[in-house]
Amino acid sequence: MAGWARAVRGLLLDVSGVLYDSGADGGVPIAGSAEAVRRIKASGLKLQLCTNETQATREDFVRKLRAMGFDISVAEVTAPAPAACRLLKERGLRPHLLVHDDLVPEFAEVDKTNPNCVVLGDAAENFTYANLNEAFRLLIGMEKPVLISLGKGRYYKETDGLKLDVGAYMKALEYACDVQAEVVGKPARRFFESALAELGVPPEQAIMIGDDIVSDVGGAQQCGMRALQVRTGKYR
Amino acid sequence: MAGWARAVRGLLLDVSGVLYDSGADGGVPIAGSAEAVRRIKASGLKLQLCTNETQATREDFVRKLRAMGFDISVAEVTAPAPAACRLLKERGLRPHLLVHDDLVPEFAEVDKTNPNCVVLGDAAENFTYANLNEAFRLLIGMEKPVLISLGKGRYYKETDGLKLDVGAYMKALEYACDVQAEVVGKPARRFFESALAELGVPPEQAIMIGDDIVSDVGGAQQCGMRALQVRTGKYR
Repeated sequence: MAGWARAVRGLLLDVSGVLYDSGADGGVPIAGSAEAVRRIKASGLKLQLCTNETQATREDFVRKLRAMGFDISVAEVTAPAPAACRLLKERGLRPHLLVHDDLVPEFAEVDKTNPNCVVLGDAAENFTYANLNEAFRLLIGMEKPVLISLGKGRYYKETDGLKLDVGAYMKALEYACDVQAEVVGKPARRFFESALAELGVPPEQAIMIGDDIVSDVGGAQQCGMRALQVRTGKYR
Repeated sequence: MAGWARAVRGLLLDVSGVLYDSGADGGVPIAGSAEAVRRIKASGLKLQLCTNETQATREDFVRKLRAMGFDISVAEVTAPAPAACRLLKERGLRPHLLVHDDLVPEFAEVDKTNPNCVVLGDAAENFTYANLNEAFRLLIGMEKPVLISLGKGRYYKETDGLKLDVGAYMKALEYACDVQAEVVGKPARRFFESALAELGVPPEQAIMIGDDIVSDVGGAQQCGMRALQVRTGKYR
């Protein structure tokens, strides 16, 4: 075992494409992944899931993972929506949400009247022509458009094939409004720092494991961590 | 009158936002525009419409303009779809179309079996989550993805408000597939050159008139023409 490997005390794990393949049916676990989580925990390594999942609240997400056999609690999940809520409150921003229906409860405590920003998540079926035009019109009507994107992934794999991820729609709105989105979630440095704080391990003693070369591997490396790319999920 | 103005022998006119504001109801002419077309023609100036309109065949487009009172024939319209058809044939490309239903007849003569490229137009209501995912999957499955975009406008004005234009969706697919689209239509140099050839006037004796600073004004200037921006349409 290499010297750096002996120093590892904690793992950040991406979820979709690493632990399971998502899908309209809820998704299916990747063979051996539940056992891997069990063995990581039994070995004494710390573990935190670091996900850009924005199609469900953390509570529902963990419920789904547990039903698939993963021994995971809500505190072991770092996800973009709670991070976005902190940012909105800090800056007095009132969002118009273009997100998945199942994510809306994460923003229950946030003032959404008279929006002065747009929050974009992986809205899936909510990415309609009408909804995209609505978000665009709100942004273009602002003196200084503020677009907050929960991740900037290009695409991901579901059980019925590849799907465009939030990053593609972020680029559409960026171009139309001539603005740059603020990304909350991987690969943002601040997001990895939150995940490490929750993991309780400094970057040089942690490894990120994911299937996305930009969001997972690149983001972690920019934060001073090592990273491993799995050959499941979107890996081609 | 300035010297250059005396040299002008022909005009290229953008249509949406210059002659009329488009809309689900077919659109409404901008006050004075039909009379302006009549006076241009009566003055002896040559005139060609240079449009990125991709929501209808040229025949239907001209029928609509004539019903609004514009004295225009099909030969006086330069539009992206016929230009794209020439390009597809030249390069042996078989397109998957993500375009407006009413534009499909323009591609009647083109082989569309076993697609080896995607042609993107202003598909409007056809910009669904499912259709965008389908176009994305075809592109990402190609050894060398070829994306042809009928224009790269950011947005345009309809009678019920601003709408995202084809350029926004082009950017989404470009980002997801890590490719650069080939743009047919304004502001592509080749497209302006076609319009000038149809106008029968060299660039230094022609003026482009439009409401889009990039597609109309910038594109024409790069082609050696002068250009004027109107204060109707998307002008803000």
